[in-house]
Amino acid sequence: MRAVGMVVEFNPFHNGHAYYVQQAKKQAAADVTLAVMSGDFTQRGEPTVVDKWERTRAALASGVDLVIELPFFYACQPAHRFAAGALRLLSEMGVSAVAFGAEHPQWDFRSLVRAAKTFDQRDLKQYTETYATQFNDQLMQATGVSLKEPNDILAFAYTKAAENHHYAFDLQPIKRRGSDYHDEQISGRIASASAIRQAMLTGNDYQETIPAEMLVSLAAVKRVPTWEKLYPMLRNQLIQAPVEQLRQTYQMAEGLEYRMKEQAQRSLDFDHFIHGIKTKRYTYAHLIRLCLYTTLQVREKELAEHVNQPYLHILGFNRRGQAYLHQVKKQVNIPMFTKVGQDLRDGLCNLDYRAGKLYQTFTPVEQDLKHAPIILR
Amino acid sequence: MRAVGMVVEFNPFHNGHAYYVQQAKKQAAADVTLAVMSGDFTQRGEPTVVDKWERTRAALASGVDLVIELPFFYACQPAHRFAAGALRLLSEMGVSAVAFGAEHPQWDFRSLVRAAKTFDQRDLKQYTETYATQFNDQLMQATGVSLKEPNDILAFAYTKAAENHHYAFDLQPIKRRGSDYHDEQISGRIASASAIRQAMLTGNDYQETIPAEMLVSLAAVKRVPTWEKLYPMLRNQLIQAPVEQLRQTYQMAEGLEYRMKEQAQRSLDFDHFIHGIKTKRYTYAHLIRLCLYTTLQVREKELAEHVNQPYLHILGFNRRGQAYLHQVKKQVNIPMFTKVGQDLRDGLCNLDYRAGKLYQTFTPVEQDLKHAPIILR
Repeated sequence: MRAVGMVVEFNPFHNGHAYYVQQAKKQAAADVTLAVMSGDFTQRGEPTVVDKWERTRAALASGVDLVIELPFFYACQPAHRFAAGALRLLSEMGVSAVAFGAEHPQWDFRSLVRAAKTFDQRDLKQYTETYATQFNDQLMQATGVSLKEPNDILAFAYTKAAENHHYAFDLQPIKRRGSDYHDEQISGRIASASAIRQAMLTGNDYQETIPAEMLVSLAAVKRVPTWEKLYPMLRNQLIQAPVEQLRQTYQMAEGLEYRMKEQAQRSLDFDHFIHGIKTKRYTYAHLIRLCLYTTLQVREKELAEHVNQPYLHILGFNRRGQAYLHQVKKQVNIPMFTKVGQDLRDGLCNLDYRAGKLYQTFTPVEQDLKHAPIILR
Repeated sequence: MRAVGMVVEFNPFHNGHAYYVQQAKKQAAADVTLAVMSGDFTQRGEPTVVDKWERTRAALASGVDLVIELPFFYACQPAHRFAAGALRLLSEMGVSAVAFGAEHPQWDFRSLVRAAKTFDQRDLKQYTETYATQFNDQLMQATGVSLKEPNDILAFAYTKAAENHHYAFDLQPIKRRGSDYHDEQISGRIASASAIRQAMLTGNDYQETIPAEMLVSLAAVKRVPTWEKLYPMLRNQLIQAPVEQLRQTYQMAEGLEYRMKEQAQRSLDFDHFIHGIKTKRYTYAHLIRLCLYTTLQVREKELAEHVNQPYLHILGFNRRGQAYLHQVKKQVNIPMFTKVGQDLRDGLCNLDYRAGKLYQTFTPVEQDLKHAPIILR
């Protein structure tokens, strides 16, 4: 069986995703589609509109054959780490091709990656706005192209990761159909996930853009999960923990622990807080991820250990997905499992587990421990 | 000027308190009444129904001349530490007498204290139910009396502290008027604070039992502060912090860190949580205080340092109170202040400040930093 892999958030799963899955399968001439999906928090560090199980169920109902969780330590990271982690898992799963959206699928991403090699050396500071600007200036000079749009940035990151690791699978950029990522208006049956989330928050119509299975889950959401509701936990941690402890948080650098502590004392809501700590130096995405690491008390050292211990947590599958699992399971070199027991909870999956416990702010559903995979017969 | 001191919570301030203040002043033949009052959390570790400023305002309106905050490290403690801390402050303030309620004011508490000297040696384990039972059995054998009721227990603790430190002031037990502490029914103009809180929670009438000034504050309370609303912060801390860190929490002993961590993972609400960790060994009061220390991340070491650095934070006064302050301020040997600046926030008053920040779960009002005292002209 030939598999095509995708790296997704499905937040929420919409008609555009259903189309994209079909396209990916067709272009790759694949028998089976495999999605590596973020858990309960997105790459930007935001809580997803519904949990990973609801999103898995919806994906399976709309043509995805197998859903694997992208672990927290890969999922809530800047593009280059997010992409590298996801491809690592897809490579373990032996996919023949990896499909990804791009605003400019016609670009030769491999040559962009090669051109950027001379100035794309730094890893640590990639989260700063300064770095992004300098990088793009240099890329423009070298290639006449600039990476401004989110899917192009990810496409570059996937290509770079595949180059670095000499992965055997094909890379398959796909033009996103319908509305633009930044388009906040909904018209017709295809809209961006971002526009749909906005519509959910403002109470506007989005129903036309969502397949039936996902719609059922979304209809049950009383209040869309946002950081506003997580803020009490973040605020308490910033106020109560001593700065020496906050400083050990993953990505907490350059005195941000003082800045965040002071601001938390003054800010009674998240909106006020996040604007208060924003500087030109850091992107909102970086700061929101930092809020998440802080709330989860993820320490630098701890994350470094987890990143070197990837695994495949199977969230759900149908018959085709199951057949594919059966085909690959002997060649997989990292732990693969369908259920999280106490050992995994306290060990490999500990960060996913803790993120899932925080996500229980929005749902009573246990997110990991003993949760059975979703099986579509 | 001759002052009578009282140790109070005023949670909320009610007609019984107003009567008790008058009685204390009369019995002590005092010119001025001085209350050392818990801040935003009670001795049991519960959030107060309204904040310390509202309660100060009400007390001043009903005959208290001067209100001083009982610091967190004395206020949220078992009876013997609560009492010893409060008397330390009253002694510094040069009061002539200390009045306190007792279910049995006719008892000779000094002789009870002396009789208990042989078996009342341990300090550390006084929070266990076992200790309380053994202590009472022995006291009964020695004196024919048993300390079962909350005000008698406190009266014993005050007397013991006064004996230990040879304080010069008189001790003045007063019979509590009207309803019993445990009485949960309201009838007439006098009810216990506990019955009034219960009425607030259940939406029953309590208005007759409260002086006008306090009634205004209580009327503004939309939802009575309870641990239920603080639980998300406690839960997150218990889940996210490693056990080695939880173990450093003040009073966290005998593996309770494991028990609380496991229970937090299973419990989505506070009620379920606190019943889940309850054993015969610990009282609810001890466990609820432990929840508070955990949420505030109060470390053993930190508390030990603070306890040795008492201070007098003046919350409010009227003309008489001000005159008394003027009279005593030169003989006071510990820091005395009416406003908390950044130095006090980060230093002496840090625990009060952090408790006040947690209390902001219930009110947008800044509880300490730069808050002016309440002055009744």
